[in-house]
Amino acid sequence: MKYSEAFLNAAADLCAAGRIIDSKERVPATSGNFSVRLPDGTIAITVSGKHKGRLQIEDIMLIDAEANSLDGKKPSAETLLHTSLYKRFPNVGCVLHPHAINAVLVSRIFKTEIVLEDYELLKAFNGITTHESRIVVPIFANDQDIPRLAAEVERYLDRHDGCYAYVIAGHGFYTWGTTVDETLRHIDALDYLFDCELRLHGVKKV
Amino acid sequence: MKYSEAFLNAAADLCAAGRIIDSKERVPATSGNFSVRLPDGTIAITVSGKHKGRLQIEDIMLIDAEANSLDGKKPSAETLLHTSLYKRFPNVGCVLHPHAINAVLVSRIFKTEIVLEDYELLKAFNGITTHESRIVVPIFANDQDIPRLAAEVERYLDRHDGCYAYVIAGHGFYTWGTTVDETLRHIDALDYLFDCELRLHGVKKV
Amino acid sequence: MKYSEAFLNAAADLCAAGRIIDSKERVPATSGNFSVRLPDGTIAITVSGKHKGRLQIEDIMLIDAEANSLDGKKPSAETLLHTSLYKRFPNVGCVLHPHAINAVLVSRIFKTEIVLEDYELLKAFNGITTHESRIVVPIFANDQDIPRLAAEVERYLDRHDGCYAYVIAGHGFYTWGTTVDETLRHIDALDYLFDCELRLHGVKKV
Amino acid sequence: MKYSEAFLNAAADLCAAGRIIDSKERVPATSGNFSVRLPDGTIAITVSGKHKGRLQIEDIMLIDAEANSLDGKKPSAETLLHTSLYKRFPNVGCVLHPHAINAVLVSRIFKTEIVLEDYELLKAFNGITTHESRIVVPIFANDQDIPRLAAEVERYLDRHDGCYAYVIAGHGFYTWGTTVDETLRHIDALDYLFDCELRLHGVKKV
Repeated sequence: MKYSEAFLNAAADLCAAGRIIDSKERVPATSGNFSVRLPDGTIAITVSGKHKGRLQIEDIMLIDAEANSLDGKKPSAETLLHTSLYKRFPNVGCVLHPHAINAVLVSRIFKTEIVLEDYELLKAFNGITTHESRIVVPIFANDQDIPRLAAEVERYLDRHDGCYAYVIAGHGFYTWGTTVDETLRHIDALDYLFDCELRLHGVKKV
Repeated sequence: MKYSEAFLNAAADLCAAGRIIDSKERVPATSGNFSVRLPDGTIAITVSGKHKGRLQIEDIMLIDAEANSLDGKKPSAETLLHTSLYKRFPNVGCVLHPHAINAVLVSRIFKTEIVLEDYELLKAFNGITTHESRIVVPIFANDQDIPRLAAEVERYLDRHDGCYAYVIAGHGFYTWGTTVDETLRHIDALDYLFDCELRLHGVKKV
Repeated sequence: MKYSEAFLNAAADLCAAGRIIDSKERVPATSGNFSVRLPDGTIAITVSGKHKGRLQIEDIMLIDAEANSLDGKKPSAETLLHTSLYKRFPNVGCVLHPHAINAVLVSRIFKTEIVLEDYELLKAFNGITTHESRIVVPIFANDQDIPRLAAEVERYLDRHDGCYAYVIAGHGFYTWGTTVDETLRHIDALDYLFDCELRLHGVKKV
Repeated sequence: MKYSEAFLNAAADLCAAGRIIDSKERVPATSGNFSVRLPDGTIAITVSGKHKGRLQIEDIMLIDAEANSLDGKKPSAETLLHTSLYKRFPNVGCVLHPHAINAVLVSRIFKTEIVLEDYELLKAFNGITTHESRIVVPIFANDQDIPRLAAEVERYLDRHDGCYAYVIAGHGFYTWGTTVDETLRHIDALDYLFDCELRLHGVKKV
């Protein structure tokens, strides 16, 4: 298949994002998956089974908005979690899903949601202009049945505005933004704020 | 605008300092801001909204001592915190403001000030020659009204000599020095000593 | 001795693996040892006494399936722990033994075994397809008598299927896989999951 | 001054060692000092006030066995702690003094000594061949009067064999070995084992 220039640029951005995310140890083993929506509505997304800190262009595939492969490569089981975010949010151009250890610990300790408030770094989230803000990150039970998990996420987002990310218990988190850079900023902020909350709640960093 | 050689050298120093500070994970997302005072009293300072570990020369702007832009770029909201330090301390040539997570945790646990004493690394602070010294780092409440926050800092510094840094709660810290290198040394020492106090606090309070 | 191309490729893979493992601080001092089984049944293995993050091709030696040196170099005392895994598991092509600090802490706290369950990252282990799995990693007492320690491991493996790794108390862990990449993935997953358990244990026991 | 080839090689080794030690964050600010004994009994040692992760050849000076400068550069105040180790131990060729934060915490918690036993990594120390060993690392009070501190160390070493290192409270540790590589190995092992003991003694790594 001959890929468009838009696809190749998005693929290069995802490879670079993977190196940044891996350098902070947020995608151990071959975990995580990342995507970018192209101007024509198709989506560049990582294939499964690759180390995200060592991605090559050929490790990125093209799907349509319904998660169908457009280039014959096999999409990851979790692709549906990406496409449903793109459908819901017309302005979202990037979805990143790391397995940062702090997200796993958060899910074990905070159970159904974690509340982040009174941090300057909340201003890293698109649209937030003061530390006197409050962000709720919901925590969903892990589920290998991805359509069922996607439906659970949908139900939550139907009822809640101002959601920037969600945690899957024992697994990792999903976050999104208008661009790759903004979404990387959301990852940085979430991992930092999760770390604050965990340390303040008495989790020993052994 | 045609920048002076002094500005360009300062800008390069700030870009390099940003990479060092980011390598220790002290400026997550696009947080932090840094400045250097030039020989003519104008100030080179980072524009807002950039990742401080990936600064380019064009991400540094020129302001006067009153925080007015001299090159048409838009100064960060926190610029006033830099200029008021330069006015107070004629020998200060650099102000650095990282968002190190330890500073946020210190502000949650120690409330109004943190006392650092009996550490060899206190000698990293300009003018301190023995571990038998005592440094107090005040902690101010976070405030999006920067002139009000600056005034709060001024009132504290009017009454206290020997202050090398202050923490803004839930936010980060400001420190200053005669040169970029000395101010980087202060960051290293503060983050290390905050880490000591936090870990020892964990021991005592659990 | 003139080495085969298969040996030289395996040696290069082990050198590269050492750099990756060292970058995560899992082989302090000159600790650890690594091996790859070649198609003819001989084994490329690190000589002892070298820093594993700075391995050169000449730091890899060739042994037969009985742990006899084939190139005159002196094998490490722990070589027997490698060869006995290759004998037991015909599909295993790589054995890696890091000294990750988490393994030492696990052995001090969990005593005889550590159970890993309900983590998405369990899917990093060959053959595991859901987080609703349970992996038991046995912990053996450290022993400088390697044949005796190898026999202890053998007795355990005789009685337990689905074992991906074992910890030696106060020492480190052994893990194995079909390829170097898969075994590196196992290291990543084990260290991450040990970290989770240790930190959560801290919460529960303090 | 024209330096000998032996000096220049030693200086290059110290610069390289500084980069390795700094990469593990064991020499914050401009802390630490390092030395190598040359075949003629003179000593190459770091000048004070430099960042040890960015050492250049000109940051290394030459002293005699009595700590007198041989090249006009000003020796660090702690030079005497190096020369007294070289006088006592004829086989010692290198002395390294990092400010690893674990050493500071160890001194706050363990007070007069820390005992390391039943760790495989004890075998990183020259002459130790089994984990069933016991190393005692004494902790001395910090003192800006270096001759007095050196005398305190001497008194301890007069009475104790098998000492590989000592901690100075709130400050850092000294360790030594026959070569730079061996001494770096001792640093790795000490920091790792201090970390184990601190975590097991309930120090929260916040």
